[in-house]
Amino acid sequence: MDLKAYMSERKTLVDNFLLSAATGEDVMPSSLHRSMRYSLEAGGKRVRPVLAIAAAEAVTGKQAQDIPGLMAAACSLEFIHTYSLVHDDLPAMDDDDFRRGRPTNHKVFGEAVAILAGDALLTYAFELLADPKYSGGMDSARSVAVIREIAYAAGSMGMVGGQVVDIESEGGGEVDFATLEYIHTHKTGALILASVRTGAIAAGADGRQLDALSRFGTHAGLAFQVADDILDIIGTQEETGKDVGSDIARGKKTYPALIGLEESKLRAKELADAAVDALSIFGAEADPLREIARYIVSRNN
Amino acid sequence: MDLKAYMSERKTLVDNFLLSAATGEDVMPSSLHRSMRYSLEAGGKRVRPVLAIAAAEAVTGKQAQDIPGLMAAACSLEFIHTYSLVHDDLPAMDDDDFRRGRPTNHKVFGEAVAILAGDALLTYAFELLADPKYSGGMDSARSVAVIREIAYAAGSMGMVGGQVVDIESEGGGEVDFATLEYIHTHKTGALILASVRTGAIAAGADGRQLDALSRFGTHAGLAFQVADDILDIIGTQEETGKDVGSDIARGKKTYPALIGLEESKLRAKELADAAVDALSIFGAEADPLREIARYIVSRNN
Repeated sequence: MDLKAYMSERKTLVDNFLLSAATGEDVMPSSLHRSMRYSLEAGGKRVRPVLAIAAAEAVTGKQAQDIPGLMAAACSLEFIHTYSLVHDDLPAMDDDDFRRGRPTNHKVFGEAVAILAGDALLTYAFELLADPKYSGGMDSARSVAVIREIAYAAGSMGMVGGQVVDIESEGGGEVDFATLEYIHTHKTGALILASVRTGAIAAGADGRQLDALSRFGTHAGLAFQVADDILDIIGTQEETGKDVGSDIARGKKTYPALIGLEESKLRAKELADAAVDALSIFGAEADPLREIARYIVSRNN
Repeated sequence: MDLKAYMSERKTLVDNFLLSAATGEDVMPSSLHRSMRYSLEAGGKRVRPVLAIAAAEAVTGKQAQDIPGLMAAACSLEFIHTYSLVHDDLPAMDDDDFRRGRPTNHKVFGEAVAILAGDALLTYAFELLADPKYSGGMDSARSVAVIREIAYAAGSMGMVGGQVVDIESEGGGEVDFATLEYIHTHKTGALILASVRTGAIAAGADGRQLDALSRFGTHAGLAFQVADDILDIIGTQEETGKDVGSDIARGKKTYPALIGLEESKLRAKELADAAVDALSIFGAEADPLREIARYIVSRNN
């Protein structure tokens, strides 16, 4: 299959849905809505929504548009991912001036509006999931299950928890491997796992399918982060859009720093293989997920 | 009826549910969960959950505990209110060092953890609404309706929108009456209206009841804020827990500043009367709501 074409088509679907669901820049308060759209439009690969869509397609064999409420569920993950980037970049957190080659949100709109835009993006993720205009057609019980899944993954036991431990380990003394894995499985892994599970739940997966996809999501999520650590060292600024070695410069602990570059590459490949293995109960309809797992560890940005 | 006893009993119900639902301080990351509980435990009168409970009791004539999922819905409003206070107090926003006589969250836990604790409290509000362990028994369609209601009220078209306009109007030049009413109806009014509506929806209110309670919530929400503005001038620090005249000191526009103190008192009373009038279709089961509306404009803290 042609993964590039698959990802590009799904990304277009996501971009269209996302930007038509987001409130217009002219709606009061205009600064807030401009700030929200600024970060939503910054783009990226929309990995989380694409994973949700690919999981739902693997379960049903149907196209994304034919699965009720799937696009709202997929896009809510991107609203949450976007809010987390806006808050992570704040001076009190990572204090980043650039993201994807553009000034960060607070650099353009000021800290107060950036904090509030993040809050509103997070809140809007749940509105999208509960508004029949967007999630219409999804069974209410499924909507509630998806909301629970995403809220848990994004909260203090998931993404936010990982960010806290990441910040607390920064600059400080020794970080052991268990702490590094905690950070990775929570800060990025939890929402990636939730993306896969959200797609599966929206598509009505049975217990066996949800199990298999959960194993896929766990391995793929960790592979994604190990690959990110590797890219921080070997990627060029042009490819990654951020300074090379910026994680190391601010004392962040990474896989290569703890277990070496070659060992990290091996670990990333093992994780991608384990993700692919988890999909054995699925036929060709899960090929996009398999290719995405392989792409995660071979990408260069 | 004895409003004091009513409020105190409902507040105890809320405190018990809230603190048993909130994650324990010993759960990793402990700093995050301590920070969340620090602000949840700071207390206050739990006005929003009590309003939700009173609205649900008015609709059903039943006790709060006998209405499935009501306590989760009521407490989710307090999680959201609490997050909004944590973020409002941040240096980039109102830059407050004290709240309710205690150091603000970021003064104790640092800015990064305070931002993340706010994020996690907001996220947890939705988890609570979607987790059968807490909202169990509420019909899924009702859960989705409540989630939509709360997300809309807390988001860019509600509370967060009001906070943005408030910050942008601060210190600057003239603020006209329309802008002041926008700030008040959005920053505090939206969530108070949503509290009443949430209780009504959780209790299965019909269209006519929901309509009446929405009018009550709109008037009561605005009355609450006008009374708050008045208290900022005439309340003592002991009563309000913040510096007297602190709104004025930072150039915030208030009702008394725009229309004078006596006119503001009159307006608050008119709004409370309009709130009470909206309840004419209800019998004695709405007496707590009526008393709360009167209390809002007569309280001294």
